Amino acid sequence: MEEKVEKQTLLVALGGNALIRKGEQGTVEQQFKNLSVPIRQIARLSQVYKIIITHGNGPQVGNLLLQQEGCDAVPKLPLEILVAQTQGQIGYMIESTLDNQLMDLGIHYTPLVSLISYVVVDENDPAFSDPSKPIGPVYRRKKDAPSGYPIKKTAKGYRRVVVSPKPVTIVEKREIKKLIDQNFIVICCGGGGIPVIREGRAFFGVDAVIDKDLASAKLAEEVGVDIFLIATDVPGVALNYGKADQQFLRSMALKEAEQYLREGQFPSGSMGPKIEAAMQFVSHSGKRAVITSIEEIQPAVEGKAGSEIRR
Amino acid sequence: MEEKVEKQTLLVALGGNALIRKGEQGTVEQQFKNLSVPIRQIARLSQVYKIIITHGNGPQVGNLLLQQEGCDAVPKLPLEILVAQTQGQIGYMIESTLDNQLMDLGIHYTPLVSLISYVVVDENDPAFSDPSKPIGPVYRRKKDAPSGYPIKKTAKGYRRVVVSPKPVTIVEKREIKKLIDQNFIVICCGGGGIPVIREGRAFFGVDAVIDKDLASAKLAEEVGVDIFLIATDVPGVALNYGKADQQFLRSMALKEAEQYLREGQFPSGSMGPKIEAAMQFVSHSGKRAVITSIEEIQPAVEGKAGSEIRR
Repeated sequence: MEEKVEKQTLLVALGGNALIRKGEQGTVEQQFKNLSVPIRQIARLSQVYKIIITHGNGPQVGNLLLQQEGCDAVPKLPLEILVAQTQGQIGYMIESTLDNQLMDLGIHYTPLVSLISYVVVDENDPAFSDPSKPIGPVYRRKKDAPSGYPIKKTAKGYRRVVVSPKPVTIVEKREIKKLIDQNFIVICCGGGGIPVIREGRAFFGVDAVIDKDLASAKLAEEVGVDIFLIATDVPGVALNYGKADQQFLRSMALKEAEQYLREGQFPSGSMGPKIEAAMQFVSHSGKRAVITSIEEIQPAVEGKAGSEIRR
Repeated sequence: MEEKVEKQTLLVALGGNALIRKGEQGTVEQQFKNLSVPIRQIARLSQVYKIIITHGNGPQVGNLLLQQEGCDAVPKLPLEILVAQTQGQIGYMIESTLDNQLMDLGIHYTPLVSLISYVVVDENDPAFSDPSKPIGPVYRRKKDAPSGYPIKKTAKGYRRVVVSPKPVTIVEKREIKKLIDQNFIVICCGGGGIPVIREGRAFFGVDAVIDKDLASAKLAEEVGVDIFLIATDVPGVALNYGKADQQFLRSMALKEAEQYLREGQFPSGSMGPKIEAAMQFVSHSGKRAVITSIEEIQPAVEGKAGSEIRR
């Protein structure tokens, strides 16, 4: 008699490069083609794991912002609504690509939904007085950037920055948990979720963007995920990154990761927030977090690629 | 002992005026304020019925099209993607308004999701060679309308028109049925759904817009809804509409509706497609369809307002 073992749950947080690669303009054809690389692996993994997919939206929300700023005939919408629009766009692109990849694998039907998600932030979060999250294109000179939001110098060049408060709780967490319990594949928390604050018993949207890795870590914790995987544009975590003595890390204990972070090994603009999200998940759940490239999601889940953080 | 009776399912298809009223510019504040009128009634009805909400997206998708046409810095996206963006935007606005209204009624928790939906159309649909669905603003003169899509004269003035094929099936119908069976409130099929064609076993998006009432009728039929309600900007269906002898119709048998339609009582640009969607649902399911105003959703469900079509 076959023993019925409950599947473990895997949350994959897809970075922006899952849709738009470096140097690309980001046409719809490019975005669909790029998506097939991670999604094919996730389709295979869905045979072994329950799956949640989250995703970034940096370039897409930046594009919508530029488009609305360039058109006076149409009322401007706050960032919260643009994030919602990107959830629709990217949610559809991921869902339909996954549908196609599942059919390619001969899997006739898996329940699959893409959910609008909003995420509560704290109105007293200090981030509200310190816009810090880069959004949209990189400009060579400060004066080339459009007005409307503050401009900061980043490693890549000048970029507009927006407020980015910490996620407090995912509003749809109970719905997502119910769906996962019934073996639905769930796409959610796009772009870190639509940011809302709670006023009394009601919710109101705010003009901000939440870090998608931190929101994903919060969701992973609230839903009780077993493996939290961040897929990005590098193969994993390294010490002395980019230097002659660069050393790739296959596996770290939480304490080691904390120490490397304190030593300044992980720059705040790139690997830092991913490590923090992974650490946050592991420290709250005691389970496994993995950071890897879009190309190596499946081997990383299997422990053959990427960098893991364990308790 | 209390008898457990299974709730009936009510599908409410919200017209564009649920978000933007005549003469309004459509700011985000206006859209949220307008939404509270139908959504408050739906929140109350959710105590008695299982609820599915669908919605239009005409002005919103028209705005996104104008914005992207006015901005050369960002790659243009096909209509299918703009529809997906409006599903994100409006799905969020409806979901968060409903969350707030439910809390206002003291209902602590009802599972509530807003789903991305795509809808299969037939690549041989004759609509592909005859763009007919108006989109975006009304122009006084033909030459005022931007290029890119054909322009037609409508009752209101000149408008751009796009291809509008018939819905064949809702891809997420099984997921939506499962969620309704578990008393989830489901928001879906926004803007008639994202149009896709089937090629072999895969799906591909097409540059078109599906009529939201026809898509809603198809969903109502596929999911097994009991009451299909179309909420629009008039109190119901009338004979000799707008004339001295206008006669409001509270209830029609399917055969009567068919006859009035043949007699040309319902203009193709306004009430015609709604009557056809309602008739399609009733003729396939044998159940009740209702056409009413945004303000009278609840009394219309209770048979005290609006116009119904019955078998």
